[in-house]
Formats: sequence, C-alpha cells, structure tokens
Amino acid sequence: MENKKNRASAWFEELRTSICSSYEQLEQDYAGPYCDLAPGKFERKSWRREDLGGGDGGGGITAVMEGRLFERVGVNVSTVHGTFSEEFAKAIPGAEEDPRFWASGISLVAHPWSPHVPAVHFNTRFIVTTKAWFGGGGDMTPTFPDDQDTKDFHNAFKAACGKHDPEYFPKFKKWCDDYFFIKHRNEPRGVGGIFYDNLDSGDWDADFAFSQDVGRAFRDIVPKIYRRHMDQPWSEEERDALLYKRGRYVEFNLIYDRGTLFGLKTGGNVDAILMSMPPEVKWR
Amino acid sequence: MENKKNRASAWFEELRTSICSSYEQLEQDYAGPYCDLAPGKFERKSWRREDLGGGDGGGGITAVMEGRLFERVGVNVSTVHGTFSEEFAKAIPGAEEDPRFWASGISLVAHPWSPHVPAVHFNTRFIVTTKAWFGGGGDMTPTFPDDQDTKDFHNAFKAACGKHDPEYFPKFKKWCDDYFFIKHRNEPRGVGGIFYDNLDSGDWDADFAFSQDVGRAFRDIVPKIYRRHMDQPWSEEERDALLYKRGRYVEFNLIYDRGTLFGLKTGGNVDAILMSMPPEVKWR
Repeated sequence: MENKKNRASAWFEELRTSICSSYEQLEQDYAGPYCDLAPGKFERKSWRREDLGGGDGGGGITAVMEGRLFERVGVNVSTVHGTFSEEFAKAIPGAEEDPRFWASGISLVAHPWSPHVPAVHFNTRFIVTTKAWFGGGGDMTPTFPDDQDTKDFHNAFKAACGKHDPEYFPKFKKWCDDYFFIKHRNEPRGVGGIFYDNLDSGDWDADFAFSQDVGRAFRDIVPKIYRRHMDQPWSEEERDALLYKRGRYVEFNLIYDRGTLFGLKTGGNVDAILMSMPPEVKWR
Repeated sequence: MENKKNRASAWFEELRTSICSSYEQLEQDYAGPYCDLAPGKFERKSWRREDLGGGDGGGGITAVMEGRLFERVGVNVSTVHGTFSEEFAKAIPGAEEDPRFWASGISLVAHPWSPHVPAVHFNTRFIVTTKAWFGGGGDMTPTFPDDQDTKDFHNAFKAACGKHDPEYFPKFKKWCDDYFFIKHRNEPRGVGGIFYDNLDSGDWDADFAFSQDVGRAFRDIVPKIYRRHMDQPWSEEERDALLYKRGRYVEFNLIYDRGTLFGLKTGGNVDAILMSMPPEVKWR
C-alpha cells in the first residue's frame, strides 16, 4: 500500500506540473482584450495540516494564477492523513472500523475573464481507510454553451473511459449530471463531464491507470477549447451574464457540494477549499 | 386567531410602507459619489404561492430598489399558508400534530454601494401551527465597523427590548451573536443586533407590541446611521474590501442560514429568498 500511495501522489504532482505549464502557456499566447497586461504566472504556497489545527499530518501546495486570460486558476495538490470524527467516520467507506484516513489528490478550478471561455473544474484523488479507492472527474461551465466545445469535452472523457470499461462513460457522465444539479433552480451547473467515486475494481493498477487517463484527457482537451474562444472580445452585457452564471456556481458549491461542505466542517484548509469561489460574482 | 393573523399581517404591510418611504427619502437626499444619477424608487412585484408550485395559498409582494445610494434593497412582505412535509414538520413547533401552517412576515436586506455605509438585515414574522409565535430581529454588517454606529444600533434594540422585559436584550443580543457566526472562518458575519424566535409569552398582545417595537427601532435608527456616512467618497480598495466582506455574507447565507436553506428546500420563492444575495461580490 505504501508503494501505491507514493505512486498516486507522485502522479498528482506530475499532472499538476504539466497542467500548470499548459495554463501558463495559454496566458503567454493570449491575444484578446487587455493583452497589454503581463501574462500570469502561478504562485505556489505550501501548507501543512498541523499548522491549520487539522490534526495529524501532511499538507499540500496551493498554486494560484491571476492573469490576463484567467481571472483566477487554482490548482491544489495535497497529501494528508488524519482521523475522522465519529460523525464523519459513519459516512466514509471503511472508516467505521478504523477512523484513520490517508488521502492524496489534485483539484483545479479555472475562472477565465472572458464570458466566451468556459469555467472548468477537475479533480482526481486516491483515498485510503481500511478500504482504498479512486474518485474524481471533470466538468465544464460555459456562460454561452457551444455545441462543439461540449461535444469535444465529453468525447475526450468518453475516449479515456472507453480504454478501460465500456460502462464507465455512460455511468460517470450521468453521475456528473446528477451531482452538478442546482435543485432549487431546477437547472444544471454547467454542461457536465464525468464524475466517479469509490472506484475499486479489484485491480489497483487498472484503477490508477484510469485516473491517470482522466487527468490526461482533461489536460489535453481544455486548452483546445480555450484557444477557440480566448481572443474574442466581449461586451459588458456578456461579462454580466458570466457574473450571474457564477452566482449559480457559488450557490451550488456552498449549498450542495459535498467536498466543500465536508472540507469546511472537518477543519480543512479554508483558503484551499474556497479557492473554488469565483473572483467576482453578481446576483440580480 | 383570525383577528391576530389580520393584525399581524396588516402591521407588516404598514411597516413595509413606512420603511420603503424612508429608504426612498435617503435616495433622494443622497449627495455622495454618482449622485448625478437618478434617485432609486422601489419596484413592487406581487407573487402567489400557487403560481410557484409551492402548494396551498397566499403570496406576497417583493419590493426592490436599485439606486445611487443603495446598490440593492429588497423588502419582502408575505402571508402564506401551506402544509409542511413530514421531514420539516418534525422540526417546527406544533407541526408534528398537524403539518398545516400559516405565516406572515416582513424581511429586508439593504446593500449600499458605499463601503462606509453598513449593510443591514431585518425581519419579523408571526407563525401559526397548532402553536403560534413571533420571531425576528435585525443585524448590521459594516465593512469598516464604527463604534458609534454599533453602539447606537444596539442601543435602539436595547430600548425597544427594555420596554417589554429586562431579559430580552441580553438574551436576544447573544442569540444574534451565536446565530450570525461564520464557523469555518471563526468570525462573526457583522456587529450583531438581536435575534429571537418562538416568542410566545402567553400574552399575545404583548408579544405583538414587542415585535412592533423591534420594527420601529430598526426603521428609526438605520437612517441616522446611513446619514452619518452616506455622502463620504471611497477608494477602489475600500470598495474591494466591501466586496470581500460580502463574500463572507454569502458564505453565511448559503451554508448556515436556516431561513435561506429552509426556504430553498420547501419550494419557496427562490427569487424572494435569494434577494438577500449582494448584487456584486468578490472572493480573493
């Protein structure tokens, strides 16, 4: 198991490095509105769980870029271990027997300035209690959905899933649609993607390879979608439409998102958790 | 009981009318930044519970003003009746015996443009199940707290409480501090005020008179506080401080506020409930 933990966390770090390079390249190449501003660069801050009073150990690195194409992109990689409270232990597979856990993962949220460039969210993680499983996914939230973008985004995950199990894509796509639904608005948060959790097929290497392929699929498709739209100018009305759309995003994250609420209620790193909040939002 | 219901709902409407006049007068008198814009006026929209699929009947009037002093003020008065779901009936006094309810109330949220003018929130309500009680309160959220404002705001409620019961003010002030606390940030939402619920002393007339005095105290103190600061100019940094403060306000409302979550999960009027959201918000 130590070897598996090391391989998973090393992959999340490697993926972070290549994703961050790709985002910095997009900032460099950007030629749209306000491109006279300097291109953004990621700033990395490391944090340790014990410094935050979270109990037990480990920590992570929060990489944030505020640029001219991206209003904010946050990429967290963390590898922590701790002990679930009695309340939470009941809800987590394998934790009722022993409340100790180990978890490593990468998460990303990117909020572009432009209403023509979709916001995206991605994460993959490996969790160990008395059980061990992978989870994660990626989804896209455009202000003005574009059929080609949506098709390409879904197809990238479909191809990644298809390499592993023909049932993965339809199952994980539906799981994403069901999960990222804003019940009180009766509307989806975005155009979907995939979402999976508790993945333990019995073949760890296969599950790890699948999570790697999900990460690569996200890393490779997203820049293509960005490049189609990123240099296009926008109007104030279009920017406002983005800001209102972000309001729905905030409603989802704070009312329904299990990861956000779980993190906030278990003494997680508040800044790292709420890095998913959009930089600017409007409600009407 | 019919007479009590009528008196309570008529008072909430009367209070709405006088509060709205007071807010419109403030818009008229405003002489600060952007005072070349036209002063705001409330726009009223009525809604009926049955049109929203909420079940049973009644409705309300949503009054919204977007002006030059107030980025947005929303004042809702609603008088509705319905039937609680089994799940909620357990949590509401007197509803387990019979899930039908009647409720009337006024609520107000005011978000000024200026970081020197505090945001305020106020509501009072009369709820009838097999029991009947008043609830409500008012609280203030300045970006830059001012000792005199805070003292005067608290003293206005202290005077209103003191006319009725010497225990009310300390009890309801603490209740407010405990309620409007953002646990994951370990910080209060604002500088407090009062909060009370399930008020049924056995003397309905006294409880009604108390709720009326709370409404008058709010109506009369708030313009005094506004007028002290409203014409003062602000910097972009001060405006950003207001927008970040509003982010904490949103976190509280969507993660912890019982009224918001209760409303969203019981088929309430989403627009009326989320009228409490600030018009513009930033997260850093």
